Amino acid sequence: MSRKSDRTRNQIVQAANRLFYRSGYSRTSFTDVVGAAGVPRGNIYYYFKSKDDILHAAIEYRLDVIRAMLDEWNRKFTDPADRLKRFLQVVAASRHAMAQWGCPMGTLNSELGKEQPALRADSRRMFDLFVLWMTEQFAALGRADEARPLALRLLAWAQGLTVLAHVYADPELLAREAKELERWIDSVDARQR
Amino acid sequence: MSRKSDRTRNQIVQAANRLFYRSGYSRTSFTDVVGAAGVPRGNIYYYFKSKDDILHAAIEYRLDVIRAMLDEWNRKFTDPADRLKRFLQVVAASRHAMAQWGCPMGTLNSELGKEQPALRADSRRMFDLFVLWMTEQFAALGRADEARPLALRLLAWAQGLTVLAHVYADPELLAREAKELERWIDSVDARQR
Repeated sequence: MSRKSDRTRNQIVQAANRLFYRSGYSRTSFTDVVGAAGVPRGNIYYYFKSKDDILHAAIEYRLDVIRAMLDEWNRKFTDPADRLKRFLQVVAASRHAMAQWGCPMGTLNSELGKEQPALRADSRRMFDLFVLWMTEQFAALGRADEARPLALRLLAWAQGLTVLAHVYADPELLAREAKELERWIDSVDARQR
Repeated sequence: MSRKSDRTRNQIVQAANRLFYRSGYSRTSFTDVVGAAGVPRGNIYYYFKSKDDILHAAIEYRLDVIRAMLDEWNRKFTDPADRLKRFLQVVAASRHAMAQWGCPMGTLNSELGKEQPALRADSRRMFDLFVLWMTEQFAALGRADEARPLALRLLAWAQGLTVLAHVYADPELLAREAKELERWIDSVDARQR
């Protein structure tokens, strides 16, 4: 595709992504995306035949963002405990959006997980990136035998904090509890130091 | 209202409640409720003028169920640690539904929390019942100063486990991790015994 095509496609995907996050996937119509993207309806059909196609592209976009973020943390921090704490600090830093709209990943999965298995299989991949990355860090903390359960536990607890922060529109709950989880990271660190 | 009216009204509310849980609120139409309730459309209008009205009734129904459940746990168990563990055991017992449709309370709040504040204010009351009850139990465990933060933490972690169990369609994740949280209850118990 040409540069102009790429730019237009990205414009549509990012507008749709924002609407899916703020209003939910079901409550966002193809027409809503047309309006938000500022691209004529006919042009959008050139790139995307259906709302499901746009969702797929939005998920691919989010996966790229997540991969870039994990790579950045791996570069910035060499210690696995610092890396996991970085995850928690970034969750805390996004607390105002979380309190208003919930976790983009968690709420999308909760919505699609209601009898829409094909769509949900796609969005599960976002969780997979975090679970895999966290598993690597817990193994590097000297907890190789339980690395995956620990990763699932950390991700579950972080997700739960976003649910409660969203229910109560309480960003500070997320900030406080994320700090508690940083302490928990230290408590599971098995390295002799 | 007459007994027959009450029965019909309950029939509608319970059918709607089930649809809202399995398909989500947005994706359930008034027509879907008519179909599932097995009551003629005109009859439903006698009780409910809109889908929002039905949602309100469904939430009231769920609040009644939650209150009855908390009262039952209070009667069956006098020890606050046993009560909190009972909550975790009931979450674990419902793991197959949780893995398929998520937590009824959490997923409803996540959905309504996307720019539907009036509806969400109503559903938040389900969380309030649990937070209040858990706060009482943590105070009785000798943690009065931090009772509410501990209650929010436990509820957050339990919610997060339902999110991950739902994402991965993995009921056993919920069973295993709920057992871990029972151990955590013991670890925060401050009573001299």
